Amino acid sequence: MDAPVTNAAAPEALIRPGVVNASVYCKGAKVADIAIDDAGDWAKREDHVVWIGLFEPGVDLLERVGKQFALHPLAIEDAAKAHQFPKLEEFDDGLFIVARTAQMEDGRVTFGETHLFVGAGYVVSVRHGASQSYAQLRHRCEARAQRLSEGEDFIVYAILDFIVDNYFPVLDCINDQVDDIEDHVLTTTMGQEEIEQLYTLRRDLLRLRNAVVPLQDVCRRLERTDIVFIDPAMRPHFRDIRDHLRRAQERVDTLRETLAFAFEASLMNAQMQQTNISRRLAAWAAILAVPTAIAGIYGMNFEHMPELKWQYGYYAVLGVTFTICSILYWRFRRAGWL
Amino acid sequence: MDAPVTNAAAPEALIRPGVVNASVYCKGAKVADIAIDDAGDWAKREDHVVWIGLFEPGVDLLERVGKQFALHPLAIEDAAKAHQFPKLEEFDDGLFIVARTAQMEDGRVTFGETHLFVGAGYVVSVRHGASQSYAQLRHRCEARAQRLSEGEDFIVYAILDFIVDNYFPVLDCINDQVDDIEDHVLTTTMGQEEIEQLYTLRRDLLRLRNAVVPLQDVCRRLERTDIVFIDPAMRPHFRDIRDHLRRAQERVDTLRETLAFAFEASLMNAQMQQTNISRRLAAWAAILAVPTAIAGIYGMNFEHMPELKWQYGYYAVLGVTFTICSILYWRFRRAGWL
Amino acid sequence: MDAPVTNAAAPEALIRPGVVNASVYCKGAKVADIAIDDAGDWAKREDHVVWIGLFEPGVDLLERVGKQFALHPLAIEDAAKAHQFPKLEEFDDGLFIVARTAQMEDGRVTFGETHLFVGAGYVVSVRHGASQSYAQLRHRCEARAQRLSEGEDFIVYAILDFIVDNYFPVLDCINDQVDDIEDHVLTTTMGQEEIEQLYTLRRDLLRLRNAVVPLQDVCRRLERTDIVFIDPAMRPHFRDIRDHLRRAQERVDTLRETLAFAFEASLMNAQMQQTNISRRLAAWAAILAVPTAIAGIYGMNFEHMPELKWQYGYYAVLGVTFTICSILYWRFRRAGWL
Amino acid sequence: MDAPVTNAAAPEALIRPGVVNASVYCKGAKVADIAIDDAGDWAKREDHVVWIGLFEPGVDLLERVGKQFALHPLAIEDAAKAHQFPKLEEFDDGLFIVARTAQMEDGRVTFGETHLFVGAGYVVSVRHGASQSYAQLRHRCEARAQRLSEGEDFIVYAILDFIVDNYFPVLDCINDQVDDIEDHVLTTTMGQEEIEQLYTLRRDLLRLRNAVVPLQDVCRRLERTDIVFIDPAMRPHFRDIRDHLRRAQERVDTLRETLAFAFEASLMNAQMQQTNISRRLAAWAAILAVPTAIAGIYGMNFEHMPELKWQYGYYAVLGVTFTICSILYWRFRRAGWL
Amino acid sequence: MDAPVTNAAAPEALIRPGVVNASVYCKGAKVADIAIDDAGDWAKREDHVVWIGLFEPGVDLLERVGKQFALHPLAIEDAAKAHQFPKLEEFDDGLFIVARTAQMEDGRVTFGETHLFVGAGYVVSVRHGASQSYAQLRHRCEARAQRLSEGEDFIVYAILDFIVDNYFPVLDCINDQVDDIEDHVLTTTMGQEEIEQLYTLRRDLLRLRNAVVPLQDVCRRLERTDIVFIDPAMRPHFRDIRDHLRRAQERVDTLRETLAFAFEASLMNAQMQQTNISRRLAAWAAILAVPTAIAGIYGMNFEHMPELKWQYGYYAVLGVTFTICSILYWRFRRAGWL
Ligand SMILES: [Mg+2]
Ligand SMILES: [Mg+2]
Ligand SMILES: [Mg+2]
Ligand SMILES: [Mg+2]
Ligand SMILES: [Mg+2]
Ligand SMILES: [Mg+2]
Ligand SMILES: [Mg+2]
Ligand SMILES: [Mg+2]
Ligand SMILES: [Mg+2]
Ligand SMILES: [Mg+2]
Ligand SMILES: [Mg+2]
Ligand SMILES: [Mg+2]
Ligand SMILES: [Mg+2]
Ligand SMILES: [Mg+2]
Ligand SMILES: [Mg+2]
Ligand SMILES: [Mg+2]
Ligand SMILES: [Mg+2]
Ligand SMILES: [Mg+2]
Ligand SMILES: [Mg+2]
Ligand SMILES: [Mg+2]
Ligand SMILES: [Mg+2]
Ligand SMILES: [Mg+2]
Ligand SMILES: [Mg+2]
Ligand SMILES: [Mg+2]
Ligand SMILES: [Mg+2]
Ligand SMILES: [Mg+2]
Ligand SMILES: [Mg+2]
Ligand SMILES: [Mg+2]
Ligand SMILES: [Mg+2]
Ligand SMILES: [Mg+2]
Ligand SMILES: [Mg+2]
Repeated sequence: MDAPVTNAAAPEALIRPGVVNASVYCKGAKVADIAIDDAGDWAKREDHVVWIGLFEPGVDLLERVGKQFALHPLAIEDAAKAHQFPKLEEFDDGLFIVARTAQMEDGRVTFGETHLFVGAGYVVSVRHGASQSYAQLRHRCEARAQRLSEGEDFIVYAILDFIVDNYFPVLDCINDQVDDIEDHVLTTTMGQEEIEQLYTLRRDLLRLRNAVVPLQDVCRRLERTDIVFIDPAMRPHFRDIRDHLRRAQERVDTLRETLAFAFEASLMNAQMQQTNISRRLAAWAAILAVPTAIAGIYGMNFEHMPELKWQYGYYAVLGVTFTICSILYWRFRRAGWL
Repeated sequence: MDAPVTNAAAPEALIRPGVVNASVYCKGAKVADIAIDDAGDWAKREDHVVWIGLFEPGVDLLERVGKQFALHPLAIEDAAKAHQFPKLEEFDDGLFIVARTAQMEDGRVTFGETHLFVGAGYVVSVRHGASQSYAQLRHRCEARAQRLSEGEDFIVYAILDFIVDNYFPVLDCINDQVDDIEDHVLTTTMGQEEIEQLYTLRRDLLRLRNAVVPLQDVCRRLERTDIVFIDPAMRPHFRDIRDHLRRAQERVDTLRETLAFAFEASLMNAQMQQTNISRRLAAWAAILAVPTAIAGIYGMNFEHMPELKWQYGYYAVLGVTFTICSILYWRFRRAGWL
Repeated sequence: MDAPVTNAAAPEALIRPGVVNASVYCKGAKVADIAIDDAGDWAKREDHVVWIGLFEPGVDLLERVGKQFALHPLAIEDAAKAHQFPKLEEFDDGLFIVARTAQMEDGRVTFGETHLFVGAGYVVSVRHGASQSYAQLRHRCEARAQRLSEGEDFIVYAILDFIVDNYFPVLDCINDQVDDIEDHVLTTTMGQEEIEQLYTLRRDLLRLRNAVVPLQDVCRRLERTDIVFIDPAMRPHFRDIRDHLRRAQERVDTLRETLAFAFEASLMNAQMQQTNISRRLAAWAAILAVPTAIAGIYGMNFEHMPELKWQYGYYAVLGVTFTICSILYWRFRRAGWL
Repeated sequence: MDAPVTNAAAPEALIRPGVVNASVYCKGAKVADIAIDDAGDWAKREDHVVWIGLFEPGVDLLERVGKQFALHPLAIEDAAKAHQFPKLEEFDDGLFIVARTAQMEDGRVTFGETHLFVGAGYVVSVRHGASQSYAQLRHRCEARAQRLSEGEDFIVYAILDFIVDNYFPVLDCINDQVDDIEDHVLTTTMGQEEIEQLYTLRRDLLRLRNAVVPLQDVCRRLERTDIVFIDPAMRPHFRDIRDHLRRAQERVDTLRETLAFAFEASLMNAQMQQTNISRRLAAWAAILAVPTAIAGIYGMNFEHMPELKWQYGYYAVLGVTFTICSILYWRFRRAGWL
Repeated sequence: MDAPVTNAAAPEALIRPGVVNASVYCKGAKVADIAIDDAGDWAKREDHVVWIGLFEPGVDLLERVGKQFALHPLAIEDAAKAHQFPKLEEFDDGLFIVARTAQMEDGRVTFGETHLFVGAGYVVSVRHGASQSYAQLRHRCEARAQRLSEGEDFIVYAILDFIVDNYFPVLDCINDQVDDIEDHVLTTTMGQEEIEQLYTLRRDLLRLRNAVVPLQDVCRRLERTDIVFIDPAMRPHFRDIRDHLRRAQERVDTLRETLAFAFEASLMNAQMQQTNISRRLAAWAAILAVPTAIAGIYGMNFEHMPELKWQYGYYAVLGVTFTICSILYWRFRRAGWL
């Protein structure tokens, strides 16, 4: 027997590595939950399509699945390890597709991977790392029997569409953070916290870009492939996904440029502030040098300093000092240094 | 019945979401204002072309229109949401075109979108967000019956041409602002306000670029398409639009580079000013250190300081101090520090 | 009748908008100066070629010319407005070419445009803005009857070659200015004037690049076109122009990079100078703090300060102060701070 | 006779330039260790494949090997010198492949090169500089007779796969160092040591990129070549290597961008710190100017300064000074300057 | 008669503009030194190949040579002027090749140009500016009769190979200088001299890149051309040159990036140093403000300052001042400011 088939309604946290779901469909209706070792036979029956969902499967399990559908050893090797590049590989009798997933988790972007094996009569999806379970998606498909009856190509479309749709909430969230940083950067100086946030956003956008860009090539090849189990009527759907990916890429690129602008604006602001402080420092140093110099002079101990003996010398000196300082203050003020 | 058909002469502000106009033309002359649900039949009549203008329509309305012309569900889905990438999609019996619009509103650039469904006998335009109503354009077309008689392809050309022509006043306006910033940057330092303006201009130019660049690809494909309702004689017109787009792109790119130059020049200016202030500060500190040091020395309370007893010691010290300060001042002046 | 046909020998300043010259040539020899409204007939005669030169013509004149050679309305529209992108457009029976011109005027680069209509039996050149008159070029062609006898394609070559040759004096002039800036930047700091000059040079180079790069594509297409009035023997000539354009582009790009290097070197120099000034300021502040502190101490009014009563206390303090300052001076000197 | 054939089990350090190993295989089993001068004859026997491993061979040895398999003189010339560009060259009857190797040695990345001559019946590998010996790989291949029986193409695959697999530990190590730098940069300022480390990492990543990028092209050509000794069934294996190279390149690029981000963040941090220090300096200068100025005033020697005679004048002045300083301190504190 | 045919053994300095050498070869052996005006006839004899070497020839000489081999006027025009872009031009019956040369002269990189006319039975090389004479190369070729017997294509290969081989000593020299700068930049600050050197290196690398990159295209076309006098067996040789060019380009690019890194590291270092100086300045200002402030207070002339009358007041004040300064010093030290 197989790894436990978890109930689709079960909380995410309970999903354990292994087989999440394995069912066979005919004309859009679920025929049965099946065992992995019968999957090959079911797949060969006319109008039947097997859909197996795995979550971080071990090599053993993958090899059992591989034996059912004669999967290529190199593709199995890839599927056993995460950290693949998004790609579509054609083998003699099937496709191997890798896509990267992204989602928000506690306010941070987390990334995962989904691998798909597709051939005549079967789709095997393999999830790695953070990504929403496809149980929910499976239910939605099962509810739309007419579309599900289109078979393997529809299931591939549904999964890729689901992955790409999930990029957008992530983009919205990053967008909000970038807007916040923009407001900050143009009014106050960046603190260490903002630098750190800006830094994190740039890394996330880079990773998102690395998910979005190569997946467009996957879709382009799905649009053009002449593999028998991809119905030409499905092409506009793959084109639609690619279009959404282009839009996602545009948003990523725009956000990247916006962060670059914000960084430069912030650097300019910081330089400006530095200049302002230097100016103020210089102005106050000049103003305060006046009493110091004058008081120094009248603090000298010469015997013959007639001013010291004047009745109002002290007041005169105070007055002159104050006047000079006031003039300086007023001139610095006018020049915008104070 | 339909959403209210607003009068073309009505003020912009009154335009409500829904059908703005729905008419049928034959040989360049308007035959009738029609109801949406009759549009399909009218479109099938020989030499008749239906032109429907929608503004931010709901999904219901779009599906009613879609049923008339057998529009593809994916295209309807796109048209219901704004925020599409500029593109041209070919379906079995029609085209779906997305273009971004830009215009000035209270001195700020605002962006909108226009979607076009085109097929044998019909053009449906869908406006989203800020963009000028096409009522004015429709009147101009109706006044040139000979050209309007060319049918669907002419209407598509007229709308795209109108959209592209509207980019140029926006570019002129941004151009003026960039010229202002240039003048500022090369004579004074940038304040926070200028940084903010520069920042806004860069974002607007980026968005404008994102409107202009992909639309060139749309025009290129309209030039080369062999769809039956695009007359080859129309090709030079689409090439002309593309040429205007290339010119717009060149201007956007030039303005972007100009802003980058201005930013760098400004940074250099700021650095230079910082250096000037530091120099001045250093020069005055040196000059003012002289009386302070000398006065300090003669302020000491030693019993045996012969100078203190000289009749003219005080005046000598003042004179020496003044002389040293003058020499320093003169040397700093000569060195360009003051 | 036509706009006044100005004499080719007349000074530039006298050239007024309109027809500058309209002649017909046969086997390299001028047959007659002709009226615009006869041009179409002349063009149709075997072995005859009409060459019309216009300067900033009005729409009326262009339409009259257009009627003679059945020019496309879109091309006429372009030729009436300057500010076109360099391009070659093929119409059914003719070519429309746009090139940008550049020349020095009072030490500043000025830009203009030349549009060419070419078809079987005619060449129409339209000049806009600053550019040298083609009268001189026409005389040179007339003097080389054998080459002029090659017809329309030779005239197009001669004009494009003339335009491209004129880029080089402009490049030489910019080159000299860049060399000047280089010398400056590596020895002294940049003043506001140099920043402004650097800024202007960058803009001019950008505009020059925008003239040179797209014109290469025009030449490439002239090399490969199979239009009947472009003789294959002419191809090496268009390739030669393109080669000169590649060389011009290389020079523009090199100058652009050189300015970027110069800017960075200057920024580095400025930073270095700022550091030097800060160091000096710090060193002098330290040295001058010594007499201030010591004099302060002996300026205190304590009753019991034995040093104050020593016979040579004053001289000892002066000596100690001078010694400490000298040591500090010497150490700062050795460390390169002074 | 030949250079000494070192035992595969011998420690790395003992490997001397020359022939490391020369064996012939048939149907996956080792037939014999052979002399170089017999290699050509063995290679011609059906189903036999000769695998020769050389380490930094002299020109003589290479020419002897070259004579056996009729290798092209230009390829032999390349193989005698290291410092080749990764490439695949097709000759009439064989391939010449250059790949760059990378590995960690004492915490530093070291680079080497491997050249492969491949033809019908033979594979010659030439190692230069730092790289792991292929003795280990040879043993692993010999243990998998079935795969080794696939012949020349499998050996090429095995060597390239080994080289590419060895990039990843290097990437992991650089990754760790980049993570360390990141942590540093966002919390403290960069010291000279960090700048040096960042500098070294950038150079290593650049060299790694120069190894990884052109090797993709080699694999792409191996996938598509129609050379007789490359079995089409081998193509997915070369595609797999290319896929790993794409992944390696993505990691290199991401690390490069991360370092660029880190550098910019660090520059921003440094600027911020400079501003903070200037602010503090200015604030303390202002606070300390108060007692200096006041004490200067009451240190003047005027005869008529009534305050000097007040019983509590001294305490009042101390109190006022302290109060002003406290107020200033509190205001600077509130403004975030202290 | 011709310009003087200088003896190949003559010192470089004596080479005067004009014909350097003109010989005819048959089956690899030199047949005769010939006069320019007989060259065309010799070239037509079967198995004979004429090799003419010119150095900065005048237009007259070039035209005489051109008449012998029916060279295209545009190519002659190019060859008369240096400053051409590296290129290969195919004419009806010959090739025109331009390559840029580089070599070290007194520790500075100097650039020159070589133009080649090649056709059936002849090779004409034209040297401009700094480049090693081909006399040495000619001797080497004459010594290898078998290879020289391959004819025109071998001579072209030999010259291009010679040019490309000469790039590498230049690269080695620049490499050494970049290494020097690296060592400097990471340990001390850049002085004006280093900035100037860095600047010069960047320009030289840019010029070298402009020599190396377009020459690859020339080689690629020589590999693929189907011109009759280029033997297909020669293709691997042109590929080998291109491979060396790729390697040269990689080195240029790496050196360019290294200089960019070095520049950035240096800027960071400079910023760091500025911060360090500011910190020190601030710290010493704070420490020295203590005695100044305290001495100022006890220098006031109040009648009632009890401390002034204490027996040990002076010593107490000195002690307190010293203690506070020591504490400050120690805290600044611990914080890394001193
Ligand atoms: Mg970008
Ligand atoms: Mg970026
Ligand atoms: Mg950019
Ligand atoms: Mg940018
Ligand atoms: Mg960017
Ligand atoms: Mg940027
Ligand atoms: Mg740009
Ligand atoms: Mg830009
Ligand atoms: Mg730039
Ligand atoms: Mg830029
Ligand atoms: Mg550049
Ligand atoms: Mg650049
Ligand atoms: Mg540039
Ligand atoms: Mg640069
Ligand atoms: Mg640049
Ligand atoms: Mg750059
Ligand atoms: Mg930059
Ligand atoms: Mg990058
Ligand atoms: Mg990079
Ligand atoms: Mg980037
Ligand atoms: Mg980068
Ligand atoms: Mg970048
Ligand atoms: Mg970057
Ligand atoms: Mg680079
Ligand atoms: Mg660059
Ligand atoms: Mg660069
Ligand atoms: Mg780069
Ligand atoms: Mg770089
Ligand atoms: Mg570079
Ligand atoms: Mg670079
Ligand atoms: Mg850079």
